[in-house]
Order: sequence, then C-alpha cells, then structure tokens
Amino acid sequence: MAIKPSLPKGTRDFLPEAMIQRQHILGIIRSVFKKYGFLPIETPAMEMLSTLTGKYGDEGDKLIFKILKSGDYLADADEKALENKDFASLLPMISSKALRYDLTVPFARFVVQNRNDLHFPFKRYQMQPVWRADRPQIKMGRFQEFYQCDADVVGSDSLLFELELIRIYAEVFNTLKIPCTIKLNNRKVLMAFGQKYGIADRLVDFTVALDKLDKIGVDGVRKQLEDRGFGSDVISGFEKLTSLEGGNEAKLQEIKSLLEGEDPKGVEELDFLIANADISGFETVSLELDFTLARGLNYYTGAIFEVVASDVKVGSIGGGGRYDDLTGIFGMEGVSGVGISFGLDRIHLVLEELGLIEVSAEETTEVLLLNFGEKEALFSMKLANELRDLGVNAEVYPSSAKLKKQMSFANAKGVPYVIFIGSKEMEDERFTLKDMRSGEEEKFGRMEMLGYFSTPKDDDHGRS
Amino acid sequence: MAIKPSLPKGTRDFLPEAMIQRQHILGIIRSVFKKYGFLPIETPAMEMLSTLTGKYGDEGDKLIFKILKSGDYLADADEKALENKDFASLLPMISSKALRYDLTVPFARFVVQNRNDLHFPFKRYQMQPVWRADRPQIKMGRFQEFYQCDADVVGSDSLLFELELIRIYAEVFNTLKIPCTIKLNNRKVLMAFGQKYGIADRLVDFTVALDKLDKIGVDGVRKQLEDRGFGSDVISGFEKLTSLEGGNEAKLQEIKSLLEGEDPKGVEELDFLIANADISGFETVSLELDFTLARGLNYYTGAIFEVVASDVKVGSIGGGGRYDDLTGIFGMEGVSGVGISFGLDRIHLVLEELGLIEVSAEETTEVLLLNFGEKEALFSMKLANELRDLGVNAEVYPSSAKLKKQMSFANAKGVPYVIFIGSKEMEDERFTLKDMRSGEEEKFGRMEMLGYFSTPKDDDHGRS
Repeated sequence: MAIKPSLPKGTRDFLPEAMIQRQHILGIIRSVFKKYGFLPIETPAMEMLSTLTGKYGDEGDKLIFKILKSGDYLADADEKALENKDFASLLPMISSKALRYDLTVPFARFVVQNRNDLHFPFKRYQMQPVWRADRPQIKMGRFQEFYQCDADVVGSDSLLFELELIRIYAEVFNTLKIPCTIKLNNRKVLMAFGQKYGIADRLVDFTVALDKLDKIGVDGVRKQLEDRGFGSDVISGFEKLTSLEGGNEAKLQEIKSLLEGEDPKGVEELDFLIANADISGFETVSLELDFTLARGLNYYTGAIFEVVASDVKVGSIGGGGRYDDLTGIFGMEGVSGVGISFGLDRIHLVLEELGLIEVSAEETTEVLLLNFGEKEALFSMKLANELRDLGVNAEVYPSSAKLKKQMSFANAKGVPYVIFIGSKEMEDERFTLKDMRSGEEEKFGRMEMLGYFSTPKDDDHGRS
Repeated sequence: MAIKPSLPKGTRDFLPEAMIQRQHILGIIRSVFKKYGFLPIETPAMEMLSTLTGKYGDEGDKLIFKILKSGDYLADADEKALENKDFASLLPMISSKALRYDLTVPFARFVVQNRNDLHFPFKRYQMQPVWRADRPQIKMGRFQEFYQCDADVVGSDSLLFELELIRIYAEVFNTLKIPCTIKLNNRKVLMAFGQKYGIADRLVDFTVALDKLDKIGVDGVRKQLEDRGFGSDVISGFEKLTSLEGGNEAKLQEIKSLLEGEDPKGVEELDFLIANADISGFETVSLELDFTLARGLNYYTGAIFEVVASDVKVGSIGGGGRYDDLTGIFGMEGVSGVGISFGLDRIHLVLEELGLIEVSAEETTEVLLLNFGEKEALFSMKLANELRDLGVNAEVYPSSAKLKKQMSFANAKGVPYVIFIGSKEMEDERFTLKDMRSGEEEKFGRMEMLGYFSTPKDDDHGRS
C-alpha cells in the first residue's frame, strides 16, 4: 500500500542546515534593500494565464506551468479540439491560471492594479519563488522552482536609482564576502552601434548572438553572426567591442570614438554612473564596463547590469536594467522603471563552493537539558522556560533514554551546551553545565545559570 | 491591445503596509519556534499528485490544484476518455503534479524521504503558503492562497512536547497581545466516550457532527446526531459533554466520573498537561479543557489543540494535535508526532480588528534627503550612503521637483525625518534636519548629523 515518496524533478526539499544558510542570505539582501528605502510586497503564486502569456517569448510561454481548472475541467472544452488532440487550442478552455515565471511581469501587473495606493517613485523589493518547466541542471543551479529577490523602482527615470542599485549589489556581495564583478552596459550604446553599422532594424537578432559570448566565445559569436547574414563590417565592429582594453575610463574613451556621430546618450549615462558609483568601500566588488553585455530580455531600454562571481562558474548571480515601458502591456504608459535581481540559489552555490558558509549557534539549539526521569524532566522544563524567556534556544530531551543516546543527539544536532539535572542536582539546586566543545564542566545554581546565559560570551554562543 | 489586469479569485497582492505587518507576525512566530529548538525546513510548492491524492478525503482531493503536464500534455491521453469527456480518468494522464494543500502531508513525505539525514526526535518549523480551490470568503479569512506556520516534532511520544507546544501558543499570542483561549482535548477521551456509549465503530461519524458545535450550536448538533441515527442515550451523553462546568480541575473530575470504567489514558494525559502547563506568565492567554473539541482531521490520536481569539469571530487562529502514524502512508511505520499550526492570515485579521497593528519606522524609510539639483543630489547621495552604512534607512528624492511635491512624498510615505541640502548648505557644510512630526528644524554639520542618527533616540526612530 505504501507509496515510495518522491519529488517533482528540478524541485528540492531544504533541510535545516540549508534553510539557515538561505535565511542568512535572504536576511542580508533584505536588510540592504531596506536601507535604500525599498519596501516589501508579495504577489500570489498563481496569476491569470492571460497576464503571463506572451510576455516571455514563445519559448518562455512553453515553460510556464499551467493550472488545471477545478472540478469538471472539460466542461467548456471544444469537442473538435479534444478529438484532434489539439492541446494548444484546448489549453485556454481547461486552464485559466498559471504559476508565476518571474517577479517582473507580476510586479508590472501589481503596479497597474494598485496604482492608486502607491506613492511614486515606488521602490519595492520582492523575494519569492518562481517556477519554470525548464530542463533542470542541478550543478549549474538551474531548477524548476527557485527564489528570485528583486528590487525595482518605477515612476522615475532618474539615474540616481542606477547608482543606488549598483551600490546595493556591491554592499550585498561585499557583506557576503563574494568576490565578483558588476558588469555594466547600456542598451542605448548597443542601439548607437546598430545605427553606426546600419543594423538598427536587426538589433535584437544581433544581441541574441552577442548574448552567447560567455558560452561560445568570440569565434562562436562570429560564426553565428555570419550564419545570420551579418556583413563583414558588422563582424569587425563586433570584434572591436570585444577587444576594448584598459580600465573603465579608457573604455569610455574608446567607445566614444568608435560610436562618433551617433546618439551619445548611452555613453553619457555610463560615464555618469562610472564617475559617481560610490562603491570603493566594498572591497570584494568591482564595477566593469562591458559593451557586449546584452542580456536576453528585450524590454531593457537603458542601463543593463549583470553580476558574475570571480572564482566560481555558475552563470550570473544577479542581473537587471532599466525598462521604459513595462506597464504599457497592462495599459499604463510612460512609466519608467529600473531594477535588479539576486539569484538566491546560485548565490548559495557560490558560497558553498567558496567555503564561506557559516552558521551561528544562535540559529539552532544552544542548550540541551538532559532527561533523567519524569520528575527531573518537568523540573528541567521550568529551567528551559526561564532560559527561553531570556531569549536562549533551549530544549529538554523528551525521554529518560540512556545518557549515551542523549549525548549523541546533542552532538548530532551541534548543541554547544548540555545541562545535567538528576535527582541529586534537583535536591542541591546545583546543576552541571557541560561545554560540548571544550568538554569542561561547571556547577551552577539556578540564578547563576540564568546569569551565565544572559551575558554575552566570548565564544559567541551567548546572547548579545 | 492592453489587457486589464486582474488576479485569480481568492488570491491577493500584499502592499508594503500589509507586508510589514505580516513580516512582524512571522518574525514573532519564528523567534518563538527557534527558542524551543525547532529548526526550519521548506518543501516545494509542487508535489507529485500521488503524494497528495487520498490524504484529505474526497472533498479535499477536489480542492487540490492540479498542474498540467508541460508541452503536448495530451500525448498520453486516452482517446476514449477524451471522447467521453471523462475528466476524472483523464486527470492522471495529463497531470502528475499538484500544489501543496497543507504543510503536514508534505512534511510526512519529507521525513520519510530524508529520514537518514534527520536526528530524531526531529523538531521542525515551516512557514509557507498553501493552496486550496475552496470557495473564497474574504471576511472570514478564507482564501485560495494562504500561509501556514507549522511546528511539529516527530519520533517521540513524550508529552513534554505537548507542554512545549501549548507554551509556544501562549508565548506567541501573548507577545502579539491577542486575548485568546487554547482549547484542549484528547482523541482518547472521545474514544472512551465512544466505548462507554457503544459507538466506538461510529466515532468518526459522531465527531463530524460534534465538530460543527461552534457553527450550529447544541440544538444543531443534536439534530444532526438524530439524523445520523444515534440513540437518545448517545445524545444525552453528548449533552453532558457540553454542559460540564467550572474550571479545568472540576471538568477533569466530572469527565472522570462520566467515563468511569473506560480506558483512562486520555483523561490522564489531559490531567498531566493541565498540571504542568507553565503559561501563567502569558497574561492574554488561557488554557481550557473542551471535551467537545474534535477537529475535522481524522489522523489525530492523542492531544487536540485549537486556539480561539476572545473578541473576534474569524474561526480558529491555530490548531493541531498528536498523530501516531502520519508517515505510515509513505511506508515508515510507528513514528509518533505532535504539531501545531498558526494561521497567519486570520491572526493578521484579528490584529487589525483589535487595532493592535503597529509599524515601526525602522521598517520603512527613516530619512529622505531632498533634491535641489544634480550637483546637490550627488552630494546628498554620499551622505545617504554614510547614513546607510550606519544602518539607517535613507533615500534621496530622485529629481529636483518642486519642494511641495517632495514634501508630500515624504508625508505619504510616512518618513519621520527630512534633510535639506541646497547649494548654500553644501557650501557651508551645514545641513537642515526637519522632524516631520514636530515640525522642528535644526542645523547640523556632517559628523553631527551622522552622530545624531547613530545614537538611539527617545522617540524610537533612531538606531538601537
């Protein structure tokens, strides 16, 4: 009768150790978002299918998880479509809801729907899972369920927000101690390049190839451009883009001369950001112009960001940019926005690979009170409650099992302190405290014990 | 072209104000769970359909949201089933995944699947949304997507955990200042009642009627029992259950004599819990025996809990109990567990109705630096970054809009402090700080300003 349980492919359980690490990462991202005045929102996991369809391209549409109507879901189904097994035209008859694919389209929907209750420019952050029916690649950090952490500002085209978002990236990754590069480009630079080389009308086609540079290299992109019928002048222009050298200032000079005569807006914006990005205090992070950075999403119209970890190959750990008309698809025109996203799962992978995972004992149980019988356990429970009232994470072992078993439970759970209260200790009101790492034991009265745990300790296991 | 956006029924967007309140409630529940040694886990939103089906009764099965297979979902569909519009037998051919319906069945699946990586007794907490295709009733706090916050211990039948869980309820609701009653019963008492009145084999039928006592009253339940063919002796027994008076001690005496000669285990367990529940420090909460408490779920085998807010009618705000064989359905027998659940959405409703919602300014923006032009704004941005480095939530207004517009933005967002840095202030390095509530203004140099925000202030808007 028993079913051997399993999980849908590309989804995961998170055990306590991983959860505590993830909560730690999310906590850092959240606290930085808050410092810059971003406010939290959440949207439902389910959106109307019509809200999501057509926003992510044909490939994206296929990767959206659709939810079956409840009850007799075939009630409105067309007989002909059923007969022909025409799954595409049957879809809207049997499904009207879907799981969100990212946080950006739901946010656009949110802004339009709640416009009268928001104060613009509206700065929101949102940290929720998204779902994609993608082929899972666990080692590359690609899952069917994963968290996105987004910060966006809508209702202003001020470049001050680009400066803030760059600094948010720098602060978060510096706090996490992840060496990384924030890559920066501007869609308008790519547009000027398109003008210069007479491919303005084929820019998307060009950037789709350009976007693969990381994966297939210069030769690969050259080949793709040739296959797509771009001329040798365009290809030589592309090669110039990839061969710019020196620091950001030097690159700005070179791109200025390369794009001379074209609209200078994009280069000017990059110039402003490079000049005013105030991130020198964040030592693990550098900011680097990369004129080949395109990113797949076509809605970017200004700045484009991407964050790449220096020592780990997992793809980008963050990305974003400015979009001038995201809410237009829902009937609210002319609202400029700019945003960034953190990929929790990849950041977690990077921290693991770099050996930067630390878990504070305060996140788990700090004290285990051993159990020597019902009377003793009830007595211990009272002391445990007093410790909890001081904010100490405490547990009483649930049964008077053999001492060895109780101690190995403490070890397995990584509990730093154990308290022994047997009948003798109860009588004397003197309890033995054992430090599980040093092995040292000490006897305390009740108030001494509470005092010991209410003052900060050098070893960081006390309360601060 | 533009689509008027909408949300699936029974789902909600959470705007910043509501989000901050929800985060506050979740934060309190989480911190109490941690103090009692519970560790966090998460499970995927999607489970295999086979994991969920058959666990919630026929009605429950209908309320599970099923996810359509990706791509050509009709590929494996039976022609006959399609032709006959036989939606029930077609279901497993076009869907293999579903959204979780609660946190308990996924947790049972989790325990079985990860048993080798867990230390028993395993104490876990889990705070995630669940989805039910129920008819939404917004005012009663019934939604299609809602959060559950569960704490469970598996792998021990020690009653010490019942004591802990009662205290967790008391601590959380006392911290939230919600006056409420923790109702307590034991399935074994109901079983002894069934023995006494010769309806042991019809106990589920009996408790289904009993469970409606809150909604339809004594007369309503009496009628239902009659309709279900229970005899007058059973009905008089039911009436005795509802008419027990006095405090918990008195009730225990009465039930003892009512159930004399039957298995005393259930009453003994309740006796132990009443005698040792250490919750007198939590003033808003009382503990009350209620022998009519049955709760719908049939898997409870020992203690049954339910928490009811004293002054607000929204149904229960928490519930739980002991189950001796939850993991058996997944092939892992004889693992006893006990757990409780908090209903975030209803708790939020209760706090709103009682006017107990407070939002600290530290959760939102504390300082807005006004914008008097690009040069001034870039200068202000530097000061904002220094404030952020001190942990202060700061924002620079994004454009040099009219002063009135900037000030009304600060008011709308509820920002307590505003800083003016015009060209004169930049030159003098003396900046004006305005307290938005008192209207007072004061001039500060840079270091004074940073000092002002780095020391705790009486009014609670400073850093602590």
